[in-house]
Amino acid sequence: MNGMRNLDEESITQAVLARQSETTNPRLKEIMTSLVQHLHAFARETKLTESEWETAIEFMTDVGHMCSSKRQEFILLSDTLGLSTLVVAQNHRKPQGCTEATVFGPFHVSDAPQYELGGDVSNGMKGKPCFVSGTVTGINGEAVAGATIEVWQADQDGFYDVQNPDLEHYQGRGVLHADASGRFNFKSIVAESYPIPHDGPVGKLLEALGRHPWRPAHLHFMITAPGYERLVTHVFREGDAYLDTDVVFGVRSSLIADWIKHPPGAGPDNQHYDRDFYTLDFNFVLNPCD
Amino acid sequence: MNGMRNLDEESITQAVLARQSETTNPRLKEIMTSLVQHLHAFARETKLTESEWETAIEFMTDVGHMCSSKRQEFILLSDTLGLSTLVVAQNHRKPQGCTEATVFGPFHVSDAPQYELGGDVSNGMKGKPCFVSGTVTGINGEAVAGATIEVWQADQDGFYDVQNPDLEHYQGRGVLHADASGRFNFKSIVAESYPIPHDGPVGKLLEALGRHPWRPAHLHFMITAPGYERLVTHVFREGDAYLDTDVVFGVRSSLIADWIKHPPGAGPDNQHYDRDFYTLDFNFVLNPCD
Repeated sequence: MNGMRNLDEESITQAVLARQSETTNPRLKEIMTSLVQHLHAFARETKLTESEWETAIEFMTDVGHMCSSKRQEFILLSDTLGLSTLVVAQNHRKPQGCTEATVFGPFHVSDAPQYELGGDVSNGMKGKPCFVSGTVTGINGEAVAGATIEVWQADQDGFYDVQNPDLEHYQGRGVLHADASGRFNFKSIVAESYPIPHDGPVGKLLEALGRHPWRPAHLHFMITAPGYERLVTHVFREGDAYLDTDVVFGVRSSLIADWIKHPPGAGPDNQHYDRDFYTLDFNFVLNPCD
Repeated sequence: MNGMRNLDEESITQAVLARQSETTNPRLKEIMTSLVQHLHAFARETKLTESEWETAIEFMTDVGHMCSSKRQEFILLSDTLGLSTLVVAQNHRKPQGCTEATVFGPFHVSDAPQYELGGDVSNGMKGKPCFVSGTVTGINGEAVAGATIEVWQADQDGFYDVQNPDLEHYQGRGVLHADASGRFNFKSIVAESYPIPHDGPVGKLLEALGRHPWRPAHLHFMITAPGYERLVTHVFREGDAYLDTDVVFGVRSSLIADWIKHPPGAGPDNQHYDRDFYTLDFNFVLNPCD
């Protein structure tokens, strides 16, 4: 066992792997073997110095300390380094015709309010009125009656409700259920492009890398129904300036839709609007479970 | 720029690298290029699932939340995955004859108390009395007069002072200066083997990997002097049961020394001891700066 002494930058890797040979969980062993090999290869390849290692420890600590019930800086880090998009892509090779998935993002909450169809999920959030409608079907065109639809979005200034510490109720998010024919509709506000929270360590990293922190305008959707694969996706807004440089690499052409602008007048809810309002129609196609 | 849409698990890597092409700091670019490539290769190689990704996000968040002014869980993580030993090894390829470096560990503090030579750095810490002496020289045998010697260690139960939230003063750590001939001596207690703090996420990971959390008994030293490379190292105790399975992979044969046990009687400080006491003599050889 003297091989465990006097380890150098080459022999350390096999020593670490040998030490975890007793792992009873084969998948954990597989993951940690790959992780240790790549972590070590990274440090060797870059000839990482001790002061750079210290900077990395401080950075990771800052990322951890920025995480709270309302902010997930590690998800931001994963998103901005393209890891989230990679993981989503390799886990959702769906049949042609299904709605594509994209990144989950850090702003979902598990206890969003329920709304009846037609309800106003903005719940007072600032922005231009927007009426959203669509269908949820399976790959063969069958209606997914009662599908659970979660939607969440930022306000006109680019902030999600959970980013406002003074807000005592949720805004711009809700849970609805499609009707018997798979149709849904709700009222909200127009999504706008926004920078991801960049007042923390991830923001500093992006700045140092010469990267902007912007995401193109989008609505988040999570759609679930028995017998179908969960769909986590966005609908992006055609014409947005950041569609080609999304800071989290999430844009898919098939998810870009027109937000149609209407002049003042009667809205789809039969109310009169003194200002322009928008409509968005999008049909989601779910992938059946095996 | 349409290449930035519809990224898959292969094309995402080049897309992320392209986005950081404006980085003005060439070293940051080099490090982040390697990091992104290895991070992505790890996720592809393991076919990381979304639930595994979520577990990883939660793990990293837990590690971050465990970090405080008195606990550095990311250093523990780096140490236990062998990264720290790798970084130390590749940055300290010293000339033959110099004292080898080893890991820094998470328990150093920057404001340890100063002691005169011969002082008792245990400062009331529990353990068997131990008298430590030695010299600090350069590679050519020259005395390093006035070298700054920081020492820190755990108590007989394996806890550092900073792990005891009720303790109002430092114990088992101090800063001394070698005399004009490079000699130093101080009183402390005998180092004992101990488990690294394993009540947090790193402890859970070690357990899942079938690894014990123990380190062999050691004294930490950091020795600095103008004209010499800073030396961060330990002295390990011959005969310890964990010398071959140090949880942080830090043992080097050249750093193992005898702690000599003496029967009750007069100690090197000319005091009478009713119980056994120990002595340790170790000579440190510093590497001159270029």
